[in-house]
Amino acid sequence: MPKYRLEVEYAGEAFAGWQIQAGGERTVQGCLVEAVARVTGERVTVMGSGRTDAGVHAEAQVASLALKEEIEPGKLQRALNGVLPREVAVRAAYRVDEDFDALRSAQGKRYRYRIWNHPVRSPLRAGRFAHVPRALDVGAMAQAAQALVGEHDFQSFQAAGSGAKTTVRRLRRLEIRGGPGGEIEVVAEGSGFLRYMVRNLVGTLLEVGQGRRSGDSMVGLLEVRDRGQAGPTAPAAGLTLEAVEYPEGVGEAGALSPTSDGKTAASEDGEA
Amino acid sequence: MPKYRLEVEYAGEAFAGWQIQAGGERTVQGCLVEAVARVTGERVTVMGSGRTDAGVHAEAQVASLALKEEIEPGKLQRALNGVLPREVAVRAAYRVDEDFDALRSAQGKRYRYRIWNHPVRSPLRAGRFAHVPRALDVGAMAQAAQALVGEHDFQSFQAAGSGAKTTVRRLRRLEIRGGPGGEIEVVAEGSGFLRYMVRNLVGTLLEVGQGRRSGDSMVGLLEVRDRGQAGPTAPAAGLTLEAVEYPEGVGEAGALSPTSDGKTAASEDGEA
Repeated sequence: MPKYRLEVEYAGEAFAGWQIQAGGERTVQGCLVEAVARVTGERVTVMGSGRTDAGVHAEAQVASLALKEEIEPGKLQRALNGVLPREVAVRAAYRVDEDFDALRSAQGKRYRYRIWNHPVRSPLRAGRFAHVPRALDVGAMAQAAQALVGEHDFQSFQAAGSGAKTTVRRLRRLEIRGGPGGEIEVVAEGSGFLRYMVRNLVGTLLEVGQGRRSGDSMVGLLEVRDRGQAGPTAPAAGLTLEAVEYPEGVGEAGALSPTSDGKTAASEDGEA
Repeated sequence: MPKYRLEVEYAGEAFAGWQIQAGGERTVQGCLVEAVARVTGERVTVMGSGRTDAGVHAEAQVASLALKEEIEPGKLQRALNGVLPREVAVRAAYRVDEDFDALRSAQGKRYRYRIWNHPVRSPLRAGRFAHVPRALDVGAMAQAAQALVGEHDFQSFQAAGSGAKTTVRRLRRLEIRGGPGGEIEVVAEGSGFLRYMVRNLVGTLLEVGQGRRSGDSMVGLLEVRDRGQAGPTAPAAGLTLEAVEYPEGVGEAGALSPTSDGKTAASEDGEA
């Protein structure tokens, strides 16, 4: 059956997260399944690279689906965008090899977390930035972040009650930068992320930035493997899934791509 | 009576524009009047530097008001932010000289117009960018814009039916820049703007960018003084009032500022 890869952008505040839920809440996956059914007449599974929680945005979430009937990817994309709600859009669509699976083929992800660090809330940044009124020491946060980069057991940063088989992940990059006005951005890139992991890392680094936690405590925090020792989960509104990485050649522009190399680094990930 | 200057940020989509309307629609000015009444017990006029239309945003609209009772500006600001809806916030508050008037004292304004120039609409930019699917020639737009800079009669770019006494304005800056992905920004700075002027300038430049109008036609368009000859009004969602300029020293941080020098360049402006 012909398989397709979709790159999907969405505004998280409009959805109860990515994944279809029993209660019938409005989800991104649910909207895509409906849109595909309207456009092709086929009701199929739309697989995402991972879940995103309610309120979390995506610039380029990746989804895969198989159809019975062949359809030109550009035509599929335009038709889907014609029926999808305004808060979600298919940025790109590719015809990919049958073995491509948005979840299993993923090799890594990049997230961006945006913080508005200013005494006054910002109406123009609401829903896209987490508001932190108290002044943050960005240098201290950046330094603490360096101890978290690398392959570690991130159990202390996993949502309580998550059932991942292993909590070891490789965090390739964790950068904190101050921007104009009071904007601060955290970029996290890695092989895969545990549920709430990015938001728990950010919540912990915010405590460092506020002087409520030592920057040197990160190594100990990894070692203790106890969610209760880390900081609170930072708000969903600040988080955006920016990119999902796949093996070279998979799902590239216009390409009839070869199968993935079978890596499953991100396969049991829930959500950052 | 003690006078105050407020710097106000708002998300335009939540309001039927700045100015209080007879029909009781939700307006920024109306919200501020209510908030001041709740905080101080005084129902006073809140004067803006000019109107902004429904859907137009502001990073720093300036407003002035006089109160009977003296109140510390920081305290006024915090109290107002505590009762204002989330789509509007007072970014700063200053105690200013009695002669300060947000409208009459204004010497200039800076607007930014954001365009998402991409075949696919962008959910994360909706409400902040105007979507133009067809590829634009940014160089041609930038070149055409240069002919509009300077002191000109901008009647061709004024909203039909506006009653400004003179339609001559000094446009100090009109810059068009391509950004990341398909983002394009137009920055307009001048002594004052006629109603819809920025949006009509942008709508006309968009026609140049799409090859539907010659870049050389701007001089003739100014000379003809006919709104019907210019391009359509670009959507409100792309427009943000970024800054209002006042004579040096007026309303600066914490300053008990001297009176304005009486310049009224922007005094009869409605809205860009």
